[in-house]
Amino acid sequence: MEKLRETVARIVPPDVRAMAWAQRRLDDLTKPPGSLGVLEKMARQIAGITGQPRPALPEKTCILMAGDHGVTEEGVSSYPSEVTAQMVLNFLAGGAAMSVLARHAGARLVVVDVGVKSDLPQHPLLLGRKVAHGTANMALGPAMTREQAVAALEVGIGVAEECIRDGAGILGTGEMGIGNTTPSTAIVALYRGCNVAEVCGRGTGLNSEQLKRKISVIEKALAVNRPDPGDPLDVLAKVGGLEIAALAGVMLAAAAGRVPVVVDGFISGAAALIAAAIAPVCREYMIASHLSEEPGHKMMLELLGLEPCLHMNMRLGEGTGAALAMLLIDGAIKIINEMATFSEAGVARSE
Amino acid sequence: MEKLRETVARIVPPDVRAMAWAQRRLDDLTKPPGSLGVLEKMARQIAGITGQPRPALPEKTCILMAGDHGVTEEGVSSYPSEVTAQMVLNFLAGGAAMSVLARHAGARLVVVDVGVKSDLPQHPLLLGRKVAHGTANMALGPAMTREQAVAALEVGIGVAEECIRDGAGILGTGEMGIGNTTPSTAIVALYRGCNVAEVCGRGTGLNSEQLKRKISVIEKALAVNRPDPGDPLDVLAKVGGLEIAALAGVMLAAAAGRVPVVVDGFISGAAALIAAAIAPVCREYMIASHLSEEPGHKMMLELLGLEPCLHMNMRLGEGTGAALAMLLIDGAIKIINEMATFSEAGVARSE
Repeated sequence: MEKLRETVARIVPPDVRAMAWAQRRLDDLTKPPGSLGVLEKMARQIAGITGQPRPALPEKTCILMAGDHGVTEEGVSSYPSEVTAQMVLNFLAGGAAMSVLARHAGARLVVVDVGVKSDLPQHPLLLGRKVAHGTANMALGPAMTREQAVAALEVGIGVAEECIRDGAGILGTGEMGIGNTTPSTAIVALYRGCNVAEVCGRGTGLNSEQLKRKISVIEKALAVNRPDPGDPLDVLAKVGGLEIAALAGVMLAAAAGRVPVVVDGFISGAAALIAAAIAPVCREYMIASHLSEEPGHKMMLELLGLEPCLHMNMRLGEGTGAALAMLLIDGAIKIINEMATFSEAGVARSE
Repeated sequence: MEKLRETVARIVPPDVRAMAWAQRRLDDLTKPPGSLGVLEKMARQIAGITGQPRPALPEKTCILMAGDHGVTEEGVSSYPSEVTAQMVLNFLAGGAAMSVLARHAGARLVVVDVGVKSDLPQHPLLLGRKVAHGTANMALGPAMTREQAVAALEVGIGVAEECIRDGAGILGTGEMGIGNTTPSTAIVALYRGCNVAEVCGRGTGLNSEQLKRKISVIEKALAVNRPDPGDPLDVLAKVGGLEIAALAGVMLAAAAGRVPVVVDGFISGAAALIAAAIAPVCREYMIASHLSEEPGHKMMLELLGLEPCLHMNMRLGEGTGAALAMLLIDGAIKIINEMATFSEAGVARSE
């Protein structure tokens, strides 16, 4: 708990002076003011986060948190829990979608076992930080104890701090956890204050019958646990997940370390809701990536005040949207650094 | 006219067998079927276009067509016509937004003078293919003769053919032409069959008074010229532009050459409407990039049956959206080539 408290205490708002300087430069570049839209917004935000009006191109690291979910016993996913561990090995071997897209984005991929059900073999690319062998079935009681939730949050903080110490100038979030759209849906329904049916989606591909079942499982989990929306650790422990907690920790540590964090899709969005409930200012360190096919994702982003730039009907998670968004963010940073100003280029300004 | 006719005659639909093979592989990769959304769609489309179920990573070329517009006399832009030529020099010097983003995307940038008002100095990176010193004022009569429109289309065809011959495996479109949202708005209003006021936007930054003026200028141009929506060359000549014609030629040549073409924003969209009216099949070779701030852009994309993947509130043109989208397309091609299959990775399939 001490590490969490200390991290939250270090979070301060971005540097408004650096943002104003960045804005002045953006307005002086050879284009109509504001015409690069979100690219300009990203450049300004990163200037504020780093305190550098012309931020350098950052080293990129994507952190992929893996964990299992006891609620899969209820038949809420098309895949068995064993796939979480199998996919971890696939990440390590470089064959998963996120392996490909992290390489494509030039990002280091750090894979963390924070709560996979089975024991995983040692591997040089895998960080073994298991807090538990998966969560308990949240349809029957709390998914985690409060202590486990804090421990998983602090795993995320610790890993993010290590990545930043190793040179990362921007972090991306990703996850693997069969069943994890179920707790994420519970979290968004709770913060939105709406019916589960309004936000629940098909995850990796449920049919209509299975979707109904998933809705009733989430309703049961909320009724059994009665998480307190005013207490994010209570929400996290009762209807969250180990990888969701760890990702929330990554986001808090990014804000504390003054590093932008690219939020992937639906599961990362649930983690972002928790992180923002713990420390609202950390939202200013977040950059949304894509809009997921999961219906609850749009609501999450609205709650967070974030706008996704990629509309690609993706619903895989792993960090795939964050990796793609990093390519756009690099473009934004190059724009503010490499474009000529009106006076440098001898171009007339608007009349 | 012969070159145009011959190019259109060579356009055939994409290879459905290669698309089916690509689909089979996509479904065999370690992810829930369809979960990578538009990335999968892009990979399948490029398989169909190239006839290769696992297409190679293509060399990328962005073609930037520059031309001026007589209609700027009517006060439809915040910038003077001279800026077109000044910006061409900025592209050649590497300081424009598109210079930066083409480099970022690893794309060659080919700049073509197809109709800049002033005479430009010779430069190794500039293709001088001037058809006219800008168009005539379309508010008073046709912007071009039919012969000029065809000549500009054939400039585009020729340049695209050269790029493909030089190794380009994917083309992007871009343009520079002060005043060119005005003809583009006329084209979309005509094809949509709606009032100009419904589609007209602020271009590079008009105020409400200037926007009203722009609307009435476009209404006048349509009333004076009465372009025939059933005759795309008539539309192009009367209310189009030299760079719009040339970009339509690029798109036709891409389809004829079996090369995907990434369509930038609003002006490129107007060119795409013309190209699709000349040869409807060429739409299957197009990949939309971003959704522009110009209100008419969404309508254009609907008419073309294309969906933009980038929502970044951009409104600069030049090809900036196309360059960013090329980074996503490269990701799609890497996905189909580099991801492991379920059997290779030893991952269980869905139940």
